[in-house]
Amino acid sequence: MSFMNFDGRKRVVIENVKPEIDGGRFPAKRVVGENVRVTADVFTDGHDKVAAVIRYRGPSDEEWHEKRCRFNGADRATAEFQVTDLGPYLYTVEGWVDHFASWQSDLKKKYDAGQTVNTEVKAGILLVREATKRAEPGDAKRLSSLAASIEREKDADRAVALCFGTELTELMDRWPDRGFSTVYERELLVTVERKRALFSSWYERFPRSCTTDPERHGSFRDCIEMLPEIRRMGFDVLYLPPIHPIGETKRKGKNNNPESEPEDVGSPWAIGSREGGHTAIHPDLGTLEDFLDLVEAGKSQGIELALDLAYQCSPDHPYVKEHPEWFRWRPDGTVQYAENPPKKYEDVLPINFETDHWQPLWEELRDVVLFWIDKGIRVFRVDNPHTKPFVFWEWLLGEIRRDYPDVIFLSEAFARPTVMYRLAKIGFTQSYTYFTWRNTKWEFESYLTELTQGDKREYFRPNFWTNTPDILPEHLQYGGRPAFMMRLLLAATLSSSYGVYGPVFELAVSEAVPGKEEYKDSEKYEVRQWDWEQPGHLRDFIARVNRVRQENPAFQTTWNLRFVEVENEYLLAYIKYDESMESLLLVVVNLDPYHTQSGWLKVPIGELEIDPEKPYLVHDLLGDGKYIWHGERNYVELNPKVLPGHIFQVRKRLRRESDFDYFV
Amino acid sequence: MSFMNFDGRKRVVIENVKPEIDGGRFPAKRVVGENVRVTADVFTDGHDKVAAVIRYRGPSDEEWHEKRCRFNGADRATAEFQVTDLGPYLYTVEGWVDHFASWQSDLKKKYDAGQTVNTEVKAGILLVREATKRAEPGDAKRLSSLAASIEREKDADRAVALCFGTELTELMDRWPDRGFSTVYERELLVTVERKRALFSSWYERFPRSCTTDPERHGSFRDCIEMLPEIRRMGFDVLYLPPIHPIGETKRKGKNNNPESEPEDVGSPWAIGSREGGHTAIHPDLGTLEDFLDLVEAGKSQGIELALDLAYQCSPDHPYVKEHPEWFRWRPDGTVQYAENPPKKYEDVLPINFETDHWQPLWEELRDVVLFWIDKGIRVFRVDNPHTKPFVFWEWLLGEIRRDYPDVIFLSEAFARPTVMYRLAKIGFTQSYTYFTWRNTKWEFESYLTELTQGDKREYFRPNFWTNTPDILPEHLQYGGRPAFMMRLLLAATLSSSYGVYGPVFELAVSEAVPGKEEYKDSEKYEVRQWDWEQPGHLRDFIARVNRVRQENPAFQTTWNLRFVEVENEYLLAYIKYDESMESLLLVVVNLDPYHTQSGWLKVPIGELEIDPEKPYLVHDLLGDGKYIWHGERNYVELNPKVLPGHIFQVRKRLRRESDFDYFV
Repeated sequence: MSFMNFDGRKRVVIENVKPEIDGGRFPAKRVVGENVRVTADVFTDGHDKVAAVIRYRGPSDEEWHEKRCRFNGADRATAEFQVTDLGPYLYTVEGWVDHFASWQSDLKKKYDAGQTVNTEVKAGILLVREATKRAEPGDAKRLSSLAASIEREKDADRAVALCFGTELTELMDRWPDRGFSTVYERELLVTVERKRALFSSWYERFPRSCTTDPERHGSFRDCIEMLPEIRRMGFDVLYLPPIHPIGETKRKGKNNNPESEPEDVGSPWAIGSREGGHTAIHPDLGTLEDFLDLVEAGKSQGIELALDLAYQCSPDHPYVKEHPEWFRWRPDGTVQYAENPPKKYEDVLPINFETDHWQPLWEELRDVVLFWIDKGIRVFRVDNPHTKPFVFWEWLLGEIRRDYPDVIFLSEAFARPTVMYRLAKIGFTQSYTYFTWRNTKWEFESYLTELTQGDKREYFRPNFWTNTPDILPEHLQYGGRPAFMMRLLLAATLSSSYGVYGPVFELAVSEAVPGKEEYKDSEKYEVRQWDWEQPGHLRDFIARVNRVRQENPAFQTTWNLRFVEVENEYLLAYIKYDESMESLLLVVVNLDPYHTQSGWLKVPIGELEIDPEKPYLVHDLLGDGKYIWHGERNYVELNPKVLPGHIFQVRKRLRRESDFDYFV
Repeated sequence: MSFMNFDGRKRVVIENVKPEIDGGRFPAKRVVGENVRVTADVFTDGHDKVAAVIRYRGPSDEEWHEKRCRFNGADRATAEFQVTDLGPYLYTVEGWVDHFASWQSDLKKKYDAGQTVNTEVKAGILLVREATKRAEPGDAKRLSSLAASIEREKDADRAVALCFGTELTELMDRWPDRGFSTVYERELLVTVERKRALFSSWYERFPRSCTTDPERHGSFRDCIEMLPEIRRMGFDVLYLPPIHPIGETKRKGKNNNPESEPEDVGSPWAIGSREGGHTAIHPDLGTLEDFLDLVEAGKSQGIELALDLAYQCSPDHPYVKEHPEWFRWRPDGTVQYAENPPKKYEDVLPINFETDHWQPLWEELRDVVLFWIDKGIRVFRVDNPHTKPFVFWEWLLGEIRRDYPDVIFLSEAFARPTVMYRLAKIGFTQSYTYFTWRNTKWEFESYLTELTQGDKREYFRPNFWTNTPDILPEHLQYGGRPAFMMRLLLAATLSSSYGVYGPVFELAVSEAVPGKEEYKDSEKYEVRQWDWEQPGHLRDFIARVNRVRQENPAFQTTWNLRFVEVENEYLLAYIKYDESMESLLLVVVNLDPYHTQSGWLKVPIGELEIDPEKPYLVHDLLGDGKYIWHGERNYVELNPKVLPGHIFQVRKRLRRESDFDYFV
């Protein structure tokens, strides 16, 4: 009993394993094709050498795979494995004392010091003979033969030389003695999602405003008409605010007016009426058949439809009568509406998750997701998840993902960092961020460093939104068209997932409710029509930026961002490149929408393996300018009224001949 | 089944709990009387208020105790508990939605916004009525009465005022609804040791060199004679290198000579001879009775005896014949001696912890510790623990501590950081450190910041040694007497545990083996006598420094260290104070043993709550100088030939009258 949990011969220690989120409480995240780079401190007592492997298994693997670790310094073991299947992978670390390598190392030191090593050589032969028992027959035969040849060798120097033979070393490495190996005490998880979980370009649009006919409520049929232009702009996710029937009781009027007129259409987030709730479709948008047609039309053009998952009800939602136990009731007998005192949202009832009847409630809410999954939806934007219990989301996302590992959930939580990171840990695929309120160089550098360089990158995938129906940020109100271009460029190149809310974005609509970051005449409360004939819309610019993202793999991940020094507080510069360094981009953005800014960049030519003695070409994929640069310090100048940024493709290997071609 | 592990109504999240070492795999450490400050992120969905407690229980508690957390910012909960008993404490965190506080907060916002709140007040009355069911009878009665008085109040403003009454708020806080509270998923451990685990002054001495009679091998009786002087110097732990019989086979001669003369006494670390092993006493040192007398004499003078736990054997150790299975045997039939190729330690055999017979081996090694515990020993300095398996130590320390939680183990591992920190995590009380090789201001500041400001302070207690029988550092070889004083001052004031190896330290012995950091004519290999009549020994200086440590609680912990700016790279300055700020010390040390150095200190008067408008007194407890200082910038000058440092006691509240007294 006193030796419980101990084995005296397991001498290797494994600790400080990464990724490991909250002591293994939560999984890390990857998309198909990404690597999981696992590091751990693996060491033993004394001066023996150790060896280690990362063990991992995918969702359909019946056995563990292994990758041998390399050691960085004395103790830091590292290996990568690539994930190829959707679903959960397990991984852990195993280490053992490498007696053969230890013996070789000691033998070399003794021999180099001129000591007699006959006995040591004999000890090594014993190690080789032991290995024949573990090796497969062919290798065992070779090992026996190698042992015999060392034994036969009468010349001491030549015998020692044989002990370090390449074949012997490789074979011994292939058949180590792992009888007393240590396996790390935790099996860790990584959840693998599809590539769009990491690389996605979102376009938000109110379907009811998708017609230019002022007489008509827009419909799914109108949305289908709109798809080619969305595709041309380069978006791959079309997110629609709630498409369900809208309540009439306490319906909001235009501009969030508590009183509505009979013709007012209300907020789509006031979900549910006599016509149905979360699985019903607003009759003016069309039928379920129209909806299915839209889903299919999108698919055929490479655009996925994303629905809004807003777990709240208008007072007219069928749940209120059918399940009064899912709501809070006030002492005066009325149902409790949503509030953030002193603000009231009387057109919306929050669900009472503290109800004793939480189990049927949870099942119903899950069935809403399954209903739309059944209709072909695989992307959900979740409205205010931080106002529902974390434990509910952890359960729901787990339930859905078990059967549908391809479903993507975007968390719309603008909340405290603890809250936003917790939502990511419990399973949300992507998250809204503070990008919308980051403006200065220092803000971008510190926030992006937090997102991309620390442990958070293991589980928090940012989705950078330029604007939303709730947020018209101040810089867009006052910065004019250059600010819209600058913000698009930042969102689309700092994060591999980003989104815009259109068409107010492409049209550079900047009129706000005075003193607030809210749209005047917001589409949230009325049907709007938009004038596509006005000059200066940004659709071509957006199309160009999205094409650059599609053509350059370096923009298809968020994790490869490195900031670059530039001697001007208004210029933000960063490099992104893929592992091969084939796709090597340098982005420079002018954060000042009013003035031309210029400065000297310090290109990290060492990291980029650029020859300091030779010129190299940078090609601006936005403005199409081409520049020959040289060494670290190079000059940039950006007039925001022309273009607020460069996306330079860096061509390191500038060949004299092709240069010429390139410039003509 | 699908709801397994979930409760929908437990809305509070608890994460980022500290201290939590390696996801709870290892305990934190404290000594009796210290506080455990526990912090955690505790939050919920929406905007509800949360409340939290730290739960903890001591080794003899039958129930959990609780301390209510205060919140720092939105989510960071903090509470402290004091540990008073030896042994393991458990702690965890519990949090719940505070519906009453949430209701009060919302009520206030609505009322302040001029909204009608009659229904809200009624909802609050219901909350109070619910609480009466949880409260003890007296409180329940008061709550009923308070609810009734709100209900009776016809004036709306006065009714609202009653809702914020102090008594009501306190009573509701005392009887919260914790039915759906969340308990953090891990119970964490803190191991509590006695105060000496944190505050100790060690003196190392070879007992065989404790006589000035050149004809005689020193003995325990000689050690008893020596105790009053050790006490006068202010040490409280006397550590003796191994006291066991020494092997004869391959015995080392003077100065580590592989060949020995018949009169050579050998290294005490070559443990074991025909006369016995790890539980036997070297006959020349005395009998077991003499040993027990030494233990008792030490106790009566406040000095604890520490023994050396060196798990290795001379070739003559009884184990070699009785348990050949505990050693490695070479192909030539000889037993494997210790080596660190190409170095050989032929007088010492390592134990083979990979033996199949590891269980009886471990039990025997544990029994060695229990043998000496039975003789009154409670402090062990463990020789080279990093050359024995970590898993063995984890088991051994756990076994011993279960029955003897007062036993202190000092880890003598000079190894890589991973190794040293792991030994601390698995249970060693204190550890040797890199102090011995830290010399520059930058080195001290960065190393001490690592030890005292990060997570490591939760489990790694440094013990700073000026020198050891193995290490005569270069700065002591070349820096003269000022270097010895400076190093003592640093060791004794940077770390609450420190040690010196004497008498070579007090006598400022600096003669090394050329080109090495080893003592010439080392006591490890011969009996030495020392001349106490020579001038300039450091015993009075040591006594003074140790007295300052004993009289000033701020020096009795390592964790309160803060560095202070001083404009000279050779001057190191730091403050230490206890929680009450009664014991407030400022140490300034000249790191240059050759030259007078001076500079301007930047005293952190804000942190120290010193009035910038008024003078304050600093009293040098070493040199007895007194200085009136003013504001931040103050001048210091240190001549190392006089005194290499100041230990200023800062008297913040300088009263004009007592000043005068103080200076006369």
